[in-house]
Amino acid sequence: MKFDATDTLCVNTIRTLSIDMVGQADSGHPGLPLGATPLAYAVWAGQLKFYPSDPAWFDRDRFVLSAGHGSSMLYSMLHLYGYGLKLEDLKKFRQLDSLTPGHPEYGHTAGVENTTGPLGQGFANAVGMALAEKLTAEKLNTPEFRLVDHFTYVLVGDGDLMEGLSYEAASLAGTMKLGKLICLYDSNGITIEGSTSLAFTEDVKKRFLAQDWQVLEVEDGNNLDELDSAIRKAKRETESPSIIIAKTHIGWASPKQDKNSVHGEPLKPDEILATKKALGWPSAEPFFVPEEAKARFAEQAAAGENARKRWLKLWKKYSEALPGKAELAKAMLGREIPEGLFNPDISFFDKPMATREASGKVINLMADALPGLTGGSADLGPSTKTDFIKDPSRTLHFGIREHAMGAIINGLALHGGLIPFGATFLVFSDYMRPALRLAAVMQTPSVFVFTHDSIGVGEDGPTHQPVEHLMSLRLIPGLLVLRPADAWETIYAWETAVRSKRPACLALSRQKLPLMTQYREKIAAGLKRGAYLLRGPSTVPSVELIASGSEVSLLFEAAALLEKDNIAARIISVPSFELFREQDKAYRNSVFLPNLPKLAVEAGRGIGWSELVGTEVEVLGVESFGKSAPAGQVYAALGLTAETIAARAKKMVK
Amino acid sequence: MKFDATDTLCVNTIRTLSIDMVGQADSGHPGLPLGATPLAYAVWAGQLKFYPSDPAWFDRDRFVLSAGHGSSMLYSMLHLYGYGLKLEDLKKFRQLDSLTPGHPEYGHTAGVENTTGPLGQGFANAVGMALAEKLTAEKLNTPEFRLVDHFTYVLVGDGDLMEGLSYEAASLAGTMKLGKLICLYDSNGITIEGSTSLAFTEDVKKRFLAQDWQVLEVEDGNNLDELDSAIRKAKRETESPSIIIAKTHIGWASPKQDKNSVHGEPLKPDEILATKKALGWPSAEPFFVPEEAKARFAEQAAAGENARKRWLKLWKKYSEALPGKAELAKAMLGREIPEGLFNPDISFFDKPMATREASGKVINLMADALPGLTGGSADLGPSTKTDFIKDPSRTLHFGIREHAMGAIINGLALHGGLIPFGATFLVFSDYMRPALRLAAVMQTPSVFVFTHDSIGVGEDGPTHQPVEHLMSLRLIPGLLVLRPADAWETIYAWETAVRSKRPACLALSRQKLPLMTQYREKIAAGLKRGAYLLRGPSTVPSVELIASGSEVSLLFEAAALLEKDNIAARIISVPSFELFREQDKAYRNSVFLPNLPKLAVEAGRGIGWSELVGTEVEVLGVESFGKSAPAGQVYAALGLTAETIAARAKKMVK
Repeated sequence: MKFDATDTLCVNTIRTLSIDMVGQADSGHPGLPLGATPLAYAVWAGQLKFYPSDPAWFDRDRFVLSAGHGSSMLYSMLHLYGYGLKLEDLKKFRQLDSLTPGHPEYGHTAGVENTTGPLGQGFANAVGMALAEKLTAEKLNTPEFRLVDHFTYVLVGDGDLMEGLSYEAASLAGTMKLGKLICLYDSNGITIEGSTSLAFTEDVKKRFLAQDWQVLEVEDGNNLDELDSAIRKAKRETESPSIIIAKTHIGWASPKQDKNSVHGEPLKPDEILATKKALGWPSAEPFFVPEEAKARFAEQAAAGENARKRWLKLWKKYSEALPGKAELAKAMLGREIPEGLFNPDISFFDKPMATREASGKVINLMADALPGLTGGSADLGPSTKTDFIKDPSRTLHFGIREHAMGAIINGLALHGGLIPFGATFLVFSDYMRPALRLAAVMQTPSVFVFTHDSIGVGEDGPTHQPVEHLMSLRLIPGLLVLRPADAWETIYAWETAVRSKRPACLALSRQKLPLMTQYREKIAAGLKRGAYLLRGPSTVPSVELIASGSEVSLLFEAAALLEKDNIAARIISVPSFELFREQDKAYRNSVFLPNLPKLAVEAGRGIGWSELVGTEVEVLGVESFGKSAPAGQVYAALGLTAETIAARAKKMVK
Repeated sequence: MKFDATDTLCVNTIRTLSIDMVGQADSGHPGLPLGATPLAYAVWAGQLKFYPSDPAWFDRDRFVLSAGHGSSMLYSMLHLYGYGLKLEDLKKFRQLDSLTPGHPEYGHTAGVENTTGPLGQGFANAVGMALAEKLTAEKLNTPEFRLVDHFTYVLVGDGDLMEGLSYEAASLAGTMKLGKLICLYDSNGITIEGSTSLAFTEDVKKRFLAQDWQVLEVEDGNNLDELDSAIRKAKRETESPSIIIAKTHIGWASPKQDKNSVHGEPLKPDEILATKKALGWPSAEPFFVPEEAKARFAEQAAAGENARKRWLKLWKKYSEALPGKAELAKAMLGREIPEGLFNPDISFFDKPMATREASGKVINLMADALPGLTGGSADLGPSTKTDFIKDPSRTLHFGIREHAMGAIINGLALHGGLIPFGATFLVFSDYMRPALRLAAVMQTPSVFVFTHDSIGVGEDGPTHQPVEHLMSLRLIPGLLVLRPADAWETIYAWETAVRSKRPACLALSRQKLPLMTQYREKIAAGLKRGAYLLRGPSTVPSVELIASGSEVSLLFEAAALLEKDNIAARIISVPSFELFREQDKAYRNSVFLPNLPKLAVEAGRGIGWSELVGTEVEVLGVESFGKSAPAGQVYAALGLTAETIAARAKKMVK
């Protein structure tokens, strides 16, 4: 493709709209739009398969702005290409409840593929999207029909590439041969503190070559033709992902070009005018869009319609020729979850079992009903029990890269077609916390499996024993945290997780736990409500014993001890704070009876229970780091035993 | 140095002790000690400057076992070299309260330089140690006296190098030219899930070359002479850090050599015997140490005494020749904090000021009194206000690498000689959470400066507005979290942080806050107690208003509104949960008066206050993610205004 003067006008339309937005808001980042717009435009105008009227079209190319602070550029493009953003919306940039918030927000603004801003995340999401494309294509394409066949583009800045996350994700992308992933690197040599050389002198080309990428270089990041030919070359390379290193100038054409201050400080009115003058811009009026540019953008957007029509035809032929595969495709792309995932047969579990073991069974039992179910672990498969037995190709190997795993899971979920999960030890959820937070911000149906969920880890000691993690995950708004108490609860926890439209974490035990088989029906009805009465005494109760996960079995033992003293205890299992909070008051009051002494037990920091259960609750938790010793001894040393629970409850009853 | 048969015997002594420890515990990791002991031994026997009788000797070489799961190897060496670990201690490996816990624990076992296990952390700590060496040497050495002159060795495995943290830290080490950092890479091609090629195909040599390291390769990781000559070469390179890639065999000589199962599964008794046989081991008795090996280890340990004596002599001469510098050295190496850091003059602050601004002033005011004070930001200096004005060489530029910053700060603190701090936005504390946790586990005096500490961030929106972070930092045991309410509280918060022997976080506002100048004396006395009465009404109070940080100023406004309704409010500032918890009951009851309605206000998730304040407290918090808009509007939209506070309080008073 040969670009012309109108294309340059289009590029400058995006630039000037962007700096006008930032100027109007008196807040935002003018540097990236001025410097990197040609990179984005070369993709969209020259290559991107997109159709603004149907932003969710499955086989569209994905475009990710990892450097999310450049949001004004993306919004300008979404406006110009007709994604529904009006000029009025651009004028409300960064204002309360506008469609143009400070950083791009997934689910909020049509055409935004993911929420970006925290650096490195968008890049790793893109790796996940490209992986999803590859995996769904492998499942659904045939030599005749390439039903799934699109590229993933991601625009990154220096910040993205300095974050460890990006190395992890790039390393994996190289190993997985994600040839349809194309990264555009806005290499402007400037960060907030000054020249990148202050802290970043590595050779990015050599770095990506070491990670099995194709590396292409564009000397002049303003040259659309040069960019276009690099993108074409990247598309032709099908084995390796490609990165295009484009030398750019932050704040291009502005009086602050190549200065670090232009990154995040709005240009002043006179600087905006000076920039427009330097660009040869035809108007001093803010938010001016030349008709010629408008027409060119419309033309490009219209071209997407043809691509989509071709795909719809392809889909029709595919459905006719391969009805079975078409059913599969519909189930996968529509994220269909059948009524009965599997029949929880009484024979599944017959002896005490760690909930991680039960989870492994459940994953494999669900695998048939959920063809999109795909996942793996950060090099802990044998411990997290997350391997697919029948079809090992569904097991993903993330390596020892929890953070990339988290962000890639988010990318898989964003892309669609799969029900993705990633697993590691609960203590290492810390390594992926920024990705967990973004899953919650975006409300992607990402599933995270966290085993070894307490001091029950035992000998590995404090570095491997989570203490603060359960409650600190519950602190993330919008994240569903499920901690099943036995193998049966694990079934329903998994079912809740895969049916959830929001991200879910499963916290699972390393150690064996007794089966609560006799309470199966209560579990089936109760788990999804977050907390439920597991066992009420036959007599009038005088105390409530409350726990989550592995500590529930301690309650049964404690209740037996209390019974000897003629103290009758209700036993309440709390697999999920979030689900319980969503229940109506009548239900909540039926679980936690007012005016009854309450003791909550959890192998983790104790704060947070009173907000859930009521202020009268006392908590037996773990307030310090753990210890290295066999698990039972650690529990005893930290005061979590049936005896201590019973003694404490007895004191409360008086 | 030429190694001989006795050295091989020494290597095998370490190996057999290690597998006996794991066997006895029936828990642990035999794979690394069998495979990587020659790497560690080549360092210790051939090169390391160490003196077991004084493990804290400042100018010792540091040896970090980043692959902390190989703890049995390290303990065996500490025993054999005479660090005080007895054979009995080795036999209690991974048992409750033993000196030999599952992973090496700093402060618990003499000779352990840092707590390791969570992968990548040890490597990044080592980068921090090497940086500390360089910075203290620059301050204290003269052409004549090389008072600080030692190497930092770090042994890493595949897992360390897959973690994003290690790329971040390595990139920075290359940029900072840490020529005295030497990394030994135990490259055995095996991870828990199988061959590293499953998930890790990058070219590690090219990767480190891209990051400006010297890369040396040792084909046979069992060859001590080859290892020794590589280490010597590494020492000769003074500009670039060096990595020695040594090809090793996990589980060497055992029946499970080169298998992934030998990583973390104890060898069975017959496998232990088979291993010893393959090693030509002279005894079947567990924990056998040949006299010949014992003598050789003792000889090597004794050599350290000479090095230390030389250094003590050097110190003496240095003190005589350069008494001023010797004073400086004593202050820095002893982490001396003078009585009055500076005189908090009334003229410092004269108008509303963000606490991040105040923090910047305080840093620069303390700089003279604290020559070891050194720090910087993850490319946010202009925003976090953490730059040194008078002496820019004390400002560290971490690049956009929060995680490496955190772990490097820990390394600086572990090394000694400096009072290090690292800064970023509070929301990005998530990126470094594993390092924060390890600071808390190790109780290193690391200081973390987290600005932009609430929805007060404003326009940047939910991705940049912390909501769950304050409370989730408070959940980490042993971490001190300080959130000052104005510029004056910021002074005492900083003072508390630098005087603290434990890690501390400062949470600071982006937005301007009114000065509480009239309460200066109360602040000076109260901050260090964690919570204190800032203003009591002259009449009998009928409600308590409680807040931390930027929300304290809202309390004053709310109290004024309440006054109009004749409701008298006590105003209580809570800069630190941890400090308040440590006060005696009398003090606690004097701050929060029993039987008075209590309303706590904080721009973050509300759980956790009832455990601190009492169960009757009501909380006005932020329970969802934030919004992109000017800060004041975000506060209003989320219901945090003087009016809502007053209305809620009024209702509580009835």
